[in-house]
Amino acid sequence: MAEDTGLFGGVFARGGVDTGGRGWLRAMLDTEAALARALERAGLAPAGAGAAVTAAATTAAATLDPAALGGQAALTGNPVPALVRELTRMVPPDAAGAVHQGATSQDIIDTAAMLLARQALTAVTADLAATADGCAGLAAAHRDTLMIGRTLLQQAVPVTFGLVAAGWLTSLDEARQAAGRVAADRLAVQFGGAAGTLASLGTDGPRVAGLLAAELGLSCPLMPWHTDRLRVIDVGAACAGASAALAKIARDVTLLAQPEVGEVREGSGPPDAGGVRRGGSSAMPHKQNPVAAIAILGCTRRVPGLVATLVAAAEQEHQRAAGAWHAEWEPFADLLRLTGSAASWGAELAGRLIVDPGRMRANLDAAHGLPLAEHVSGLLAPALGRVAAHDLVARASAHAVTAGVPLREALLALPELREQLERVGVTQERIDSALDPAGYLGAARQFTDAALAAHARCSK
Amino acid sequence: MAEDTGLFGGVFARGGVDTGGRGWLRAMLDTEAALARALERAGLAPAGAGAAVTAAATTAAATLDPAALGGQAALTGNPVPALVRELTRMVPPDAAGAVHQGATSQDIIDTAAMLLARQALTAVTADLAATADGCAGLAAAHRDTLMIGRTLLQQAVPVTFGLVAAGWLTSLDEARQAAGRVAADRLAVQFGGAAGTLASLGTDGPRVAGLLAAELGLSCPLMPWHTDRLRVIDVGAACAGASAALAKIARDVTLLAQPEVGEVREGSGPPDAGGVRRGGSSAMPHKQNPVAAIAILGCTRRVPGLVATLVAAAEQEHQRAAGAWHAEWEPFADLLRLTGSAASWGAELAGRLIVDPGRMRANLDAAHGLPLAEHVSGLLAPALGRVAAHDLVARASAHAVTAGVPLREALLALPELREQLERVGVTQERIDSALDPAGYLGAARQFTDAALAAHARCSK
Amino acid sequence: MAEDTGLFGGVFARGGVDTGGRGWLRAMLDTEAALARALERAGLAPAGAGAAVTAAATTAAATLDPAALGGQAALTGNPVPALVRELTRMVPPDAAGAVHQGATSQDIIDTAAMLLARQALTAVTADLAATADGCAGLAAAHRDTLMIGRTLLQQAVPVTFGLVAAGWLTSLDEARQAAGRVAADRLAVQFGGAAGTLASLGTDGPRVAGLLAAELGLSCPLMPWHTDRLRVIDVGAACAGASAALAKIARDVTLLAQPEVGEVREGSGPPDAGGVRRGGSSAMPHKQNPVAAIAILGCTRRVPGLVATLVAAAEQEHQRAAGAWHAEWEPFADLLRLTGSAASWGAELAGRLIVDPGRMRANLDAAHGLPLAEHVSGLLAPALGRVAAHDLVARASAHAVTAGVPLREALLALPELREQLERVGVTQERIDSALDPAGYLGAARQFTDAALAAHARCSK
Amino acid sequence: MAEDTGLFGGVFARGGVDTGGRGWLRAMLDTEAALARALERAGLAPAGAGAAVTAAATTAAATLDPAALGGQAALTGNPVPALVRELTRMVPPDAAGAVHQGATSQDIIDTAAMLLARQALTAVTADLAATADGCAGLAAAHRDTLMIGRTLLQQAVPVTFGLVAAGWLTSLDEARQAAGRVAADRLAVQFGGAAGTLASLGTDGPRVAGLLAAELGLSCPLMPWHTDRLRVIDVGAACAGASAALAKIARDVTLLAQPEVGEVREGSGPPDAGGVRRGGSSAMPHKQNPVAAIAILGCTRRVPGLVATLVAAAEQEHQRAAGAWHAEWEPFADLLRLTGSAASWGAELAGRLIVDPGRMRANLDAAHGLPLAEHVSGLLAPALGRVAAHDLVARASAHAVTAGVPLREALLALPELREQLERVGVTQERIDSALDPAGYLGAARQFTDAALAAHARCSK
Repeated sequence: MAEDTGLFGGVFARGGVDTGGRGWLRAMLDTEAALARALERAGLAPAGAGAAVTAAATTAAATLDPAALGGQAALTGNPVPALVRELTRMVPPDAAGAVHQGATSQDIIDTAAMLLARQALTAVTADLAATADGCAGLAAAHRDTLMIGRTLLQQAVPVTFGLVAAGWLTSLDEARQAAGRVAADRLAVQFGGAAGTLASLGTDGPRVAGLLAAELGLSCPLMPWHTDRLRVIDVGAACAGASAALAKIARDVTLLAQPEVGEVREGSGPPDAGGVRRGGSSAMPHKQNPVAAIAILGCTRRVPGLVATLVAAAEQEHQRAAGAWHAEWEPFADLLRLTGSAASWGAELAGRLIVDPGRMRANLDAAHGLPLAEHVSGLLAPALGRVAAHDLVARASAHAVTAGVPLREALLALPELREQLERVGVTQERIDSALDPAGYLGAARQFTDAALAAHARCSK
Repeated sequence: MAEDTGLFGGVFARGGVDTGGRGWLRAMLDTEAALARALERAGLAPAGAGAAVTAAATTAAATLDPAALGGQAALTGNPVPALVRELTRMVPPDAAGAVHQGATSQDIIDTAAMLLARQALTAVTADLAATADGCAGLAAAHRDTLMIGRTLLQQAVPVTFGLVAAGWLTSLDEARQAAGRVAADRLAVQFGGAAGTLASLGTDGPRVAGLLAAELGLSCPLMPWHTDRLRVIDVGAACAGASAALAKIARDVTLLAQPEVGEVREGSGPPDAGGVRRGGSSAMPHKQNPVAAIAILGCTRRVPGLVATLVAAAEQEHQRAAGAWHAEWEPFADLLRLTGSAASWGAELAGRLIVDPGRMRANLDAAHGLPLAEHVSGLLAPALGRVAAHDLVARASAHAVTAGVPLREALLALPELREQLERVGVTQERIDSALDPAGYLGAARQFTDAALAAHARCSK
Repeated sequence: MAEDTGLFGGVFARGGVDTGGRGWLRAMLDTEAALARALERAGLAPAGAGAAVTAAATTAAATLDPAALGGQAALTGNPVPALVRELTRMVPPDAAGAVHQGATSQDIIDTAAMLLARQALTAVTADLAATADGCAGLAAAHRDTLMIGRTLLQQAVPVTFGLVAAGWLTSLDEARQAAGRVAADRLAVQFGGAAGTLASLGTDGPRVAGLLAAELGLSCPLMPWHTDRLRVIDVGAACAGASAALAKIARDVTLLAQPEVGEVREGSGPPDAGGVRRGGSSAMPHKQNPVAAIAILGCTRRVPGLVATLVAAAEQEHQRAAGAWHAEWEPFADLLRLTGSAASWGAELAGRLIVDPGRMRANLDAAHGLPLAEHVSGLLAPALGRVAAHDLVARASAHAVTAGVPLREALLALPELREQLERVGVTQERIDSALDPAGYLGAARQFTDAALAAHARCSK
Repeated sequence: MAEDTGLFGGVFARGGVDTGGRGWLRAMLDTEAALARALERAGLAPAGAGAAVTAAATTAAATLDPAALGGQAALTGNPVPALVRELTRMVPPDAAGAVHQGATSQDIIDTAAMLLARQALTAVTADLAATADGCAGLAAAHRDTLMIGRTLLQQAVPVTFGLVAAGWLTSLDEARQAAGRVAADRLAVQFGGAAGTLASLGTDGPRVAGLLAAELGLSCPLMPWHTDRLRVIDVGAACAGASAALAKIARDVTLLAQPEVGEVREGSGPPDAGGVRRGGSSAMPHKQNPVAAIAILGCTRRVPGLVATLVAAAEQEHQRAAGAWHAEWEPFADLLRLTGSAASWGAELAGRLIVDPGRMRANLDAAHGLPLAEHVSGLLAPALGRVAAHDLVARASAHAVTAGVPLREALLALPELREQLERVGVTQERIDSALDPAGYLGAARQFTDAALAAHARCSK
């Protein structure tokens, strides 16, 4: 039975993890099966009960209709009672007692959410790693590729594309490590029974909880976290970080890929079987839309609202919240799905990105030396004093802009400027040298190398 | 082919409008069909083309697989190109030219979104009206039912349950009227072509746009609204208002239904076929969960994040946004779905609510007169002066609280108090009268009547 | 005593309305003064009490320290009790009874919030009108100014700058009208006393409420709206719409002002007294940052979160909420302040925007005819059939891109293409004509004129 | 010069950290001073320059007017240029060159933000620790205090108040540790110059960055994080976690403090100098509002929107964002301020909370045994079989509810029930024992002890 990812699934459900109805169903049934095995191991269910429930759960995961169960959620406010009834019917009578024993609906839903989070964070970290590897390749290859740096969407001073890619890389590695930590440390089984005491298991509760955690490979918490939703927030924060790192890259790519800038583009590859070219437009053959970058932004722009919903939902009453808990279910899954999609698109983007160093250089040169005004000013300062140096270069720059001539020409052509330069012995060669963007890169390469070294360490 | 509403559909997909893959598919195909008819009416497509495309669209709406089309969205960033290819294949060759002529993908998606909004807002206003009627019934029936008013979750002064229900009613009516205005005034066809000029239709564009609007029963805007997203925000605001009105009621119900308060409960009706009692718990026969109120809160708690996403997405670049537009699709549909669910639950809640006037009176009486301290103080002020009156009652109140006796007893028992009262001629009868909560209701009935009258007017 | 607008006030507190401590203080005191006058008019306070309280409130508004009162808010959870004490001290004894009579703290804070909203929305609508007038001027002046349309940040087909400005204009007018409606219809006095019954005023409550509304020029609601927060949401939605309209313009300006695009820029005007040039950088004389557009985005990016906070806060318990109401105060004021700032920046931006039609034309021409490929294809379709025409132009376009030659040259140079064109009698003149962007503008001028006409109507 | 915390400061600006205009000013000047010292240590500024700039900065922090500087932010979009001019004027000429050398405005603002975050997180972790200590005290003292557990705001099964407090404790400790980790690991100096290369410092940039970090006690990042905003998100997430932990407690307290529940209240302490009683109401002497809990909710309800704003703002263009960066400033400070206030209120709340074990017991007993129905059913199951046992107890429970008698009476009174019980040898004593809530607490004490032990470990 195929997952229904809807009419926009190619964009938003691409991370490989099913967070829809069937995905939830599977995770809930995995939880019920693990609980039966844990009860058997604890001596609270007959031998074989764990295997019997596990077998039934496997069948149920493939055959039950999520939407039908979902409809029954209206009666009690969640789908677990209906699911438990169905599962119990599918289990031999002597094992039926092991189904859901000691558990409450929230135990099943919360633990299933943790299982979904593990799947999704695993996929996300892998895709972030692939994206980071791609960026590391770009950073290394373009360590010396000059381009204009841009602040407030205006041209500023020279940078390298290697530095840009190193910045992308650094945030990807940070986000990946954070997501990895959450996956490793913060995904815990939920098992508390009706109100967090596991009373129906007498004093066996904590032991069963430990076995359940072991069965599922999740942590066992100090105590049930029914209304302590910090784990949910931690997963949300990991997704927020991952999506922020990806969004920044995607925004840069859409901007650098503007035809008027033209410094990068997404490679399209060959048309598909139906003759459709990726990112193309049948009507406008010149179009090459940066589909991956756009899709990433389509995903990441939804993350803040979802994170806010989860943070707001953490205010939960007493031993189970009336509404706030319910409000987590779909947003939690949506957040995992969208972060997963964005990361998957990120890996594709990093693998396809075509860089045009010639266009980068051309854009830099088209600024006619103005990005180096600060540098020239610094060169003249020792001889002229800081203020006089600045004023001189400022006048030359203004002239360059007004007259539409290069800064070099403006510096050398204005008689009073030339005079002053000669007086303090600043030669044309020194000015030429100061106007070379390759000579005004500061620590660009050092930062690039540091990012690459850190990536190598964290990729081990 | 059934809609997949997922594993939580009974809670969150209850409004009767399909906002999932098939719902979108249907709305997009309705738009394509209407466009073909509009082109034919404009003389830009051969006679019969409109009907032919409409027939094909009807078939396509029932047979195409949303998820399969959705998968193809990955190539171009949206599912419309794949949908147009499929639809064109299903249309006779001579009508094929009428498919999607003049349109761009965004025209189809945005117009489809407006069609979904119309369906959903129609359902929402109907359900709000039903909820309001229920509340009007409660307000009228309990116009004189005394209860304690509660501020900051503490007991304050007496109110009536009629006034409480009148407050619910007033906000439902406000929200319904606002939603109705948006449905009537702000849902417009989107038709602009590649970049909002409709260039491929020469000078016929506006005429076709007008005919398309007429075919769909939507407004025709001044100009394409590709990157003017105020209509999206207006729909969002209507949903926010509706859900806020419902959320307030639901929160009150969950609080009033606490066993320690016990002033209202949701009727459960008879068990279903499987023996499951609505709101019940198999283990705990005393439990009667207010499922409708909880489900409403589960829906409405997600609205702020979705609205924020839509508001943020309104910052759209140039003639079509790279990501921000895409970020609207699912949240817009989710917002309609959740508001629809909340309104549907609201109608059920209002129809089922069981009010316990006896318990209301008992809770009021259990406050032992303290809610009337302000009233008594006002009674004594003319004789004693305001400050002295306040001090006297404050002392009596403190004594009542400490000694655990009614305020009346405290007032009459303390010798120095009794003396003062006698001195200024305040009889026991006057105190008894001031301690009657029915005498301290201010404008409660006037406000209730005003709300009922306004409801009667707006229901006409 | 100056308002403290903080270290970022020039950016974020520019709308001219004081929404800080003193602004709130003034609005609260205006409310208390109006209440005293209303009580006097109702015969519930001695003659002259209204004037006496009004005089004291005027003094208090200028002399009391908001921060000191704010500190006292810790005791009771809001600053009104402390304010009332101070105000009462400043009033002659015989008028003291008229201070705050019948009111509760929430009455004062909510009504003050409505007064702030009126001030802010008045300023916002005026600034939106000024911005719209500026955009109307641009639309009229550039009705025929060709530029490239851009979708997904890629070049698409030709548009006019007049159409772009008309789109800005239309959304500004929509937003302004919506804000005006909220200001006119939805700002109401709050007056309900302890729990919404006005019990301490006996049966006089509604009459005093009406007089209070008249004194303040606000609407008188059906009943107190203590926990019906739809008015707050409506103000929020008006701000969201205004800020969305402004954000779209600002985003376009930052993109069009990129040096590589260069189609618009913000004029800087002369340097200020300290020699600082607006939008300039002392180090980089070529820089001309679009400060207004950036500041608008700095404001508008915060609006979604604030709106979400207000929508979430609308779920309020019983007769006064424990926390949700308090959570509205600062965000409501922040939202008004930021929308006000953004609108003020908008008016400046519209007044300063310098358009470069030459650069627009140059960018269009630099696309070498590719934006007209769709047009050429349409020209050939009648002769060649739609598919063949598309294929032919697609091949020519691909060749143009690969070879770096204009589309025209590619169409005419490839032997097999030229042959086919000759065969069907498409002359070079017709191709030249189809490649003229001025001939492929569709309804651009019609839409522009419609927007201008609508603006003229709504400006009357 | 006093901080202006506005008219609501007692509620929302209580954490002890000035995040307003002067707080920002101080942090920016601390950064400029540290930079001068770092430059001197690096040999890039004359001896004594560091001390001279530090002295001037100290004076400037006390004397400059934030609002005046803030007004000048309008010219360039941020207040740093104006601040640097003022500071430079206050420094002796020979040290003037060390002011702001190598830095750009963003370096100063971002580093200042990190300093504010350190102050705030330090205060927050201390207040969380105090709150946690208070909760640990409650958990230990009430390890055996029985109360009814509540799910979905309905009574469920017995718990202990010790377990409730242990749950609060656990989330406080989790949140505190997370905040501590962010404070220790993620607060880094920002130093990148015009576009992240530190070009104006030649190759000395990274060395100066390291010294700057050392001067300020912040981390030195791999590379400038101008447009990598994960640190901002991490601070936001730490605040979200802290506020979520506090919000849950505050919500529980407001609910438990309802007069109809009455299980806890906030102690009011003696009236203040003006006779105002904390949480009191002059008119209603019986009122005892839980001010701390309400104030916490007033703060925490605003956190989701602020976090969403910061997450959304992380999509930043190129080397400095046009608007998204600016949109962080105030929300970042607001988030720190509100989390700080909430934590400060939390410490007060935990210190003042008065628990009423008698009322807890009374509320539990008022449920007449129904919370033990599950337990009784489990007792009978071995003898009767699970289904029959459940049915029997369900019938008894239904009878108990309908007849208004205790479950015990219902079980023993119905003839057919008594018969069956006698038949399987279940004595009245065993039923009495099963109906003892103290016998149905499962792992409550184990969980409480685990939380206390973990707290002891993490408090070392």
